[in-house]
Amino acid sequence: MDIENLNGLLRPKSVAVIGASATPGKIGHTVLLNLKESNYQGGIYPINPNEQEILGFKCYQSVLDVKEPIDAAILTIPAKFVMDTVDQCGKKGIKGLIIITSGFSEVGQVELEKDLVAKARGYGMRILGPNIVGVLSNSDNFNGSFAPFLPFKGKGSLVSQSGALLIGIDAATYMRGIGFDKLISIGNMSDVDFADTIEWLDQDENTSCISLYIEGFKDGRRTIEVARKAKKPIVALKSGVSAHGAAAAASHTGSLAGAAKIYKSAFSQAGIIQAEDLDNLFDRTLALSQQPPLKGENILILTNGGGVGVLGTDAAEKYGIPLKFAPEDVQEELKKHMPDFGSAKNPVDLTGMAGNDWYFETVNFSHGHKWVDGLVVLYCETAMTDPMGIAKAIKDGVDKSGKADKPVTVSFVGGERSEKAMHWLVENGIPAYAAPDKALNAMAALREYQLIRETANNEPFVTNKADRSMALEIINKARQDNRTSLTEIEAKEVFKAYGLPVTQIRLSTNEDEAVKFAKEIGFPIVMKIVSPDILHKSDAGGVKVNVKDEQGVRDAFKEIMKNAKAYKADANIHGIVIQEMAPWGTEVILGSVNDPTFGPTVMFGLGGIFVEVLKDVTFKVAPFSKHQALGMMSEIKAAPILSGVRGEKPRDREMLAETICLYANMIMDLKDEISESDANPVLVYEEGKGLKVADARIILKKK
Amino acid sequence: MDIENLNGLLRPKSVAVIGASATPGKIGHTVLLNLKESNYQGGIYPINPNEQEILGFKCYQSVLDVKEPIDAAILTIPAKFVMDTVDQCGKKGIKGLIIITSGFSEVGQVELEKDLVAKARGYGMRILGPNIVGVLSNSDNFNGSFAPFLPFKGKGSLVSQSGALLIGIDAATYMRGIGFDKLISIGNMSDVDFADTIEWLDQDENTSCISLYIEGFKDGRRTIEVARKAKKPIVALKSGVSAHGAAAAASHTGSLAGAAKIYKSAFSQAGIIQAEDLDNLFDRTLALSQQPPLKGENILILTNGGGVGVLGTDAAEKYGIPLKFAPEDVQEELKKHMPDFGSAKNPVDLTGMAGNDWYFETVNFSHGHKWVDGLVVLYCETAMTDPMGIAKAIKDGVDKSGKADKPVTVSFVGGERSEKAMHWLVENGIPAYAAPDKALNAMAALREYQLIRETANNEPFVTNKADRSMALEIINKARQDNRTSLTEIEAKEVFKAYGLPVTQIRLSTNEDEAVKFAKEIGFPIVMKIVSPDILHKSDAGGVKVNVKDEQGVRDAFKEIMKNAKAYKADANIHGIVIQEMAPWGTEVILGSVNDPTFGPTVMFGLGGIFVEVLKDVTFKVAPFSKHQALGMMSEIKAAPILSGVRGEKPRDREMLAETICLYANMIMDLKDEISESDANPVLVYEEGKGLKVADARIILKKK
Repeated sequence: MDIENLNGLLRPKSVAVIGASATPGKIGHTVLLNLKESNYQGGIYPINPNEQEILGFKCYQSVLDVKEPIDAAILTIPAKFVMDTVDQCGKKGIKGLIIITSGFSEVGQVELEKDLVAKARGYGMRILGPNIVGVLSNSDNFNGSFAPFLPFKGKGSLVSQSGALLIGIDAATYMRGIGFDKLISIGNMSDVDFADTIEWLDQDENTSCISLYIEGFKDGRRTIEVARKAKKPIVALKSGVSAHGAAAAASHTGSLAGAAKIYKSAFSQAGIIQAEDLDNLFDRTLALSQQPPLKGENILILTNGGGVGVLGTDAAEKYGIPLKFAPEDVQEELKKHMPDFGSAKNPVDLTGMAGNDWYFETVNFSHGHKWVDGLVVLYCETAMTDPMGIAKAIKDGVDKSGKADKPVTVSFVGGERSEKAMHWLVENGIPAYAAPDKALNAMAALREYQLIRETANNEPFVTNKADRSMALEIINKARQDNRTSLTEIEAKEVFKAYGLPVTQIRLSTNEDEAVKFAKEIGFPIVMKIVSPDILHKSDAGGVKVNVKDEQGVRDAFKEIMKNAKAYKADANIHGIVIQEMAPWGTEVILGSVNDPTFGPTVMFGLGGIFVEVLKDVTFKVAPFSKHQALGMMSEIKAAPILSGVRGEKPRDREMLAETICLYANMIMDLKDEISESDANPVLVYEEGKGLKVADARIILKKK
Repeated sequence: MDIENLNGLLRPKSVAVIGASATPGKIGHTVLLNLKESNYQGGIYPINPNEQEILGFKCYQSVLDVKEPIDAAILTIPAKFVMDTVDQCGKKGIKGLIIITSGFSEVGQVELEKDLVAKARGYGMRILGPNIVGVLSNSDNFNGSFAPFLPFKGKGSLVSQSGALLIGIDAATYMRGIGFDKLISIGNMSDVDFADTIEWLDQDENTSCISLYIEGFKDGRRTIEVARKAKKPIVALKSGVSAHGAAAAASHTGSLAGAAKIYKSAFSQAGIIQAEDLDNLFDRTLALSQQPPLKGENILILTNGGGVGVLGTDAAEKYGIPLKFAPEDVQEELKKHMPDFGSAKNPVDLTGMAGNDWYFETVNFSHGHKWVDGLVVLYCETAMTDPMGIAKAIKDGVDKSGKADKPVTVSFVGGERSEKAMHWLVENGIPAYAAPDKALNAMAALREYQLIRETANNEPFVTNKADRSMALEIINKARQDNRTSLTEIEAKEVFKAYGLPVTQIRLSTNEDEAVKFAKEIGFPIVMKIVSPDILHKSDAGGVKVNVKDEQGVRDAFKEIMKNAKAYKADANIHGIVIQEMAPWGTEVILGSVNDPTFGPTVMFGLGGIFVEVLKDVTFKVAPFSKHQALGMMSEIKAAPILSGVRGEKPRDREMLAETICLYANMIMDLKDEISESDANPVLVYEEGKGLKVADARIILKKK
């Protein structure tokens, strides 16, 4: 990455405002005013051929007239003038363009935008935008935007794909008391995209958490790669989860995919923590920017009210960190700081009598105790206590425990005094929220971050089982026939070339051949019609299972041919496959799509009702590690079936995980050839006994 | 209900403070001070034998010394003095006691509390508490509590089972700008409980929405009844959903129940809208107290920013009211009030250029248009617009549409100016929230309320199929044997007595009898061991299916007997049942528990994996209507299976619904006898072909 040019763009030492205006209310005026009012210390050069001076700054005809070096140019001129200006900026040696101007790809001017990027790149310049609000940075006193002021100060930095939302959020930071160091409006992402900003913010000394509002990635695969390598927590709110819809598609996988589920999987692969909604993005950013990850699962809740304690307990379970009782010794100590009718279990109820001292003592002890991995402190405002005193007792207790690597979150339910006390806590590095469930959700984010760290940088599964040339030969043959789907027998050959354990299969074109193959494979066998015109073989009466002897083969051959012709008189029939009848096993389905954002992506689920009725499937962008493939098995609700239920033995999950990896490697290696594919059903046997792919389908990319 | 006495308790015309103190900081002082500072206009009589006057009020030795009538007494004296005081209050003719004092059932003094209630009832007095904060009512200027001040004014009233939370919420109303008319602390619910307060608030002229914080009901069944009849919306936050846990139980149903799921079902039967968390309780109360229900499913979102529009769209789907595109004529009209690059689809994006006029015109038109059932107006604060101006435009647009029965919710994302504008909207009857998803969640609450109204007062299913004496005869026989579980054959007889379609079954005690019964029923048959000592028959090798002829019966009889003895040598074996082998059907499970809070409750789910692995079950408190029984079928995830999947015909849901009702009536009628029961599996056939209960189990209540 060209960090140097991005520095020039996002932390410029000097800026030109191209289109600076003397007319208040115009964006070219607002930006200049904002630079001035944010007390920006770098050089400020308004460019406007018709003015001598605006807001006390000397005006220039062109950036080329400025003698001093310029890092960034902020463009507010109409779209039609932008191209010429880029030339001037390039010649001046400007590093980056902050293009506020709209009127590009968002209104269909896709080519104009491409030309713009090509030209800027020719000069080595980077572009933020176009169609953005600008860049705001507290640590640089830089409001290079038309948003009214720098946000409330904080340690997270936000990248937003929506400009209007960024302005709203900017103002909202003060109401919420949750701040940011930088707000970056990313707009059309013609050049600088989420991947670039993540990479850059990860090395920015003033950012401790990267916060994203995402409508869609430009290059999903690169964004995953960059995010996976980031050393700071990343939290994202993805919108438009209902918009995409399930596209009409030729396979199960296609119809089950839909953008939202793939994004969710991609976030988890990328180590990006998800936010549920706008409030949650604020809340989680605050916790992740101020607190260390939660390294274990023992959280302790301290409270002065049973009600909020129970609400906290419910939330702990809801967000995946259920409470356990603290060991006896912890309970013994805690009992010293509460009345008889208090409770030292978890939540620890200090009762409404709890004042500063009890809060200090219990926070200090619990935060310091080795059993406690994370501490959640709850408080209901009472007439007898002073919220600020409680806040200070909490902070003091935490500081004096000497455990800087153990997270704390807080919730006060109360009025103005509580609000002030919470602001003080936040200013002093302890995230505090107005409802108990939010403190628990914040703690859960810190747990999710730890789990992500533990599984990060999982290298893809490596195998030598890949005969690409064999696979391409089969695919090319189909293409020569002008087909975009392979027959089952072809698909299985391709699967086999990548090491997938397919059932034995032979194509017969007449009864005698069918009998011969059946004898070679061994009875019982399955017989299935092979025709590129008949995709749903069962519906067409094209399948016979458990065929036990020669006469059975002959009868079935005749019947299947008859049914096929009845189903579609002019079907192109290749013959009938004679297939090993795999013993019964747990049915699972593998599928793949070639997602427009993320590329080859694997779907996994249990067969039959589970996929068709319950839509109980999970996705992962290919390729991935065996560990991640095993993870997919616990991501579906039907997971216990693979571990063995109702007295059955566990299924061979190790071999299934390897098979999923081989499948992922196949669709990755053939990403230019395969559009969608299915292995359905895959029959999985008990541990140590492997599995069999009983049917296969491949749909080719149109070329 | 004795409305009169509850009026005296919750809207007293005069109050005594028994335990009034001259010492600031003491609760007896705080309560008196609060009555004074809330500007309460009724008579105030401090009772304290050691003082002449406190805070300017004349003190009395006893309530008996007060000449004027007293409606309510607020008690702040220690628990040990309470009983004597009750006598004096009774003699004085006081209507209700607000017992703030703690030290009763919450610390194990259950008998003392019972005595207290008995004594008060003897005088016709009602008790609120003990162990409470008190009662606060804005419309009566009455702060009869030790919470510091009356809440921010609003039209909802809150009943809270947690005192500390009530105090915290009281203060929080000002920060959130979401108020209440009354706050009622309900504490130990020794007498007045949720049912009483719901009934009373439903006729309170100053309450338009009843809001509840619930830890647990005292009498769940009565609360459901009262809530069902209420004419105002009721919204509840139930805490402790993780606490109860699944109790160890003898049947599937017991282990699957758990308090949380039954409460959820009970709320839906009672027409109580649920809140997810504390914020959500505030937010939903606001909407339900200010807006009419949403009578259709067409909601329109107006916005000035694409980002919040998309977040709103996501939330609409998440909360069950997915957006549809507005008809062409609506779009045509809306296009007049936006630039070319705006969008008249749904959400309607007026773009960042939208000012007061566009907001007024589009709100006014949409709110008035017949296609629109509900309107959600979103706004991101911009530098160019004035939030208060937008707020007024919205209010004006709504007012001038003349459609008072159509709901509107609003969200502004912004800073202090937006906050003020939202407060103004709320004061003027339009609920406004700081995040778009909250405005949609509020609209969803208004939709839920409408759906509840449509299905309310569903009268229980009536049948003449109930032979109670036959059922009791079988049960009593088992009790005479000192058994607490019935054999399958007995259970089926009981089921049959209530009209449930059980498979034909006969008990044989020897091979010849078995053959005779098999021939009478008709082959094939199923044979199963009958022993109160062998509950899991399959595991014991006690089941043979598909027995086809006489020889098969004889072989099976010998083998089952052998297996049973091997399984448990001293098992008490009643014989072997010969049972009609019902043809295959979709397996469903009915189960019942006798819940400590709600009484007889039915569980329903699909058989096998669905119940055991996916826990895909739903509950309903018995009895209920056929319509509600049909509703249970769509409450499970596997619902589509009953409608017919993979080419299968729909199952006989009508008959299944009737069977569920008969089952509910049975457990209700035998509520003093049956502790738990199962009909598992019930085989459901295609439409018009009915169903069969293939196995039955009944566990008796211990007497």
